[in-house]
Amino acid sequence: MAFGIQPVLETLRSGKEVERLFIQREMGMNEIVKLAESRQIAVHRVPLEKLNRLTRKNHQGVVCFLSPIRYVPIHNILTQVYEEGKVPLFLLLDRVTDVRNFGAIVRTAECAGVQAIIVPSKGAAMINADAMKTSSGALNYLPICREESLVETVRYLSESGLQCIACTEKASIPLYKVDFSTPTVIIMGSEEDGISQELLALTNEQVAIPLLGEVDSLNVSAAAAVILYEAVRQRLD
Amino acid sequence: MAFGIQPVLETLRSGKEVERLFIQREMGMNEIVKLAESRQIAVHRVPLEKLNRLTRKNHQGVVCFLSPIRYVPIHNILTQVYEEGKVPLFLLLDRVTDVRNFGAIVRTAECAGVQAIIVPSKGAAMINADAMKTSSGALNYLPICREESLVETVRYLSESGLQCIACTEKASIPLYKVDFSTPTVIIMGSEEDGISQELLALTNEQVAIPLLGEVDSLNVSAAAAVILYEAVRQRLD
Repeated sequence: MAFGIQPVLETLRSGKEVERLFIQREMGMNEIVKLAESRQIAVHRVPLEKLNRLTRKNHQGVVCFLSPIRYVPIHNILTQVYEEGKVPLFLLLDRVTDVRNFGAIVRTAECAGVQAIIVPSKGAAMINADAMKTSSGALNYLPICREESLVETVRYLSESGLQCIACTEKASIPLYKVDFSTPTVIIMGSEEDGISQELLALTNEQVAIPLLGEVDSLNVSAAAAVILYEAVRQRLD
Repeated sequence: MAFGIQPVLETLRSGKEVERLFIQREMGMNEIVKLAESRQIAVHRVPLEKLNRLTRKNHQGVVCFLSPIRYVPIHNILTQVYEEGKVPLFLLLDRVTDVRNFGAIVRTAECAGVQAIIVPSKGAAMINADAMKTSSGALNYLPICREESLVETVRYLSESGLQCIACTEKASIPLYKVDFSTPTVIIMGSEEDGISQELLALTNEQVAIPLLGEVDSLNVSAAAAVILYEAVRQRLD
């Protein structure tokens, strides 16, 4: 963690990976905001009380957390995967903010051979020590891509030859009907909000996991396990 | 929760479902122990400090927790499933003690159409408000069977025509090679200890979930999601 105007400015200039940047709502902080924008780091405007809860020291209206990982641009991963002669299997998480769910998904995805997880720069789970622990260290192996616009990312992947499959309980096609052996990005949403309409509109197919009981949804990390391993099964065939 | 000799005796006599019974290590409590045995409730002998942490009131060396569910004998479920013309799909959890993992597994199992979850009377996760919450209420729908001896239970199920499939990362056969469309009990163990040797010896098949990354195991609730939904997939065919 870094706090105070000068320390945060230096952190931003150093090129270190910043996980979260909190600035007091009513303060300008033009220099910090500009620098953050140039590095594509989202600015979270929060009330003074939130900052006071983060540190009791003199934060001067600004606090940032460093990330335990280094984010990678999705372009780089895609190039690398194709160069290695592999078939892309990516997972895009739309506003999955629960740290433990996120960590659990990363662990399962790493085991299933997913090559990248894509999250938005705003509205993603914070990658901290808890996420690292729940991932059982998988965050050290599986590249995470933080993208400013998920819509643009999905468009880019689509143009690069990947099929975009949304997993949502509102779909009518069971996931077993889809061919996952071709280059694929799987999109999952949060348990509260699901996947945004904008993203859904860009998908090739929307699939559901059959629910045979009374409970009306799976936990998102269980759902991720089911759909990722269906892809594994088909690709092993 | 009930504590003190008379209140615990009355609770045991009332027939209410007791989730956990803690008795101070050095105390006899013959009457309570006898009553507990007759009702097949496991006695947990603990040091005084443990009881003092459970309640600050005068517990007289004995504390019990009531269960939010009613346990059902596996015999009853098996009869019922066959009477309804369904194909049994049971899940047996050998020493999965983490409450959240247990709750998560119950939720997924209920969604996958599992008809019963079998746990041991000693060494199972405590079914409390946290388990209920993580299960998203699935504990209200999916019968839980608490059996004194898992070995005898597996023998009984085997004699009743069910195949016993152990899911363990030590197996060499991938789970996709097994036919789950016949009557089946799936056995899973804790992340720390796996499945006991005694139980493994009784299984028809031991299968593994393919691990394609660097992390050497899935979380048990993710593994449950993968294997249960492989059964769903095969049964939908």
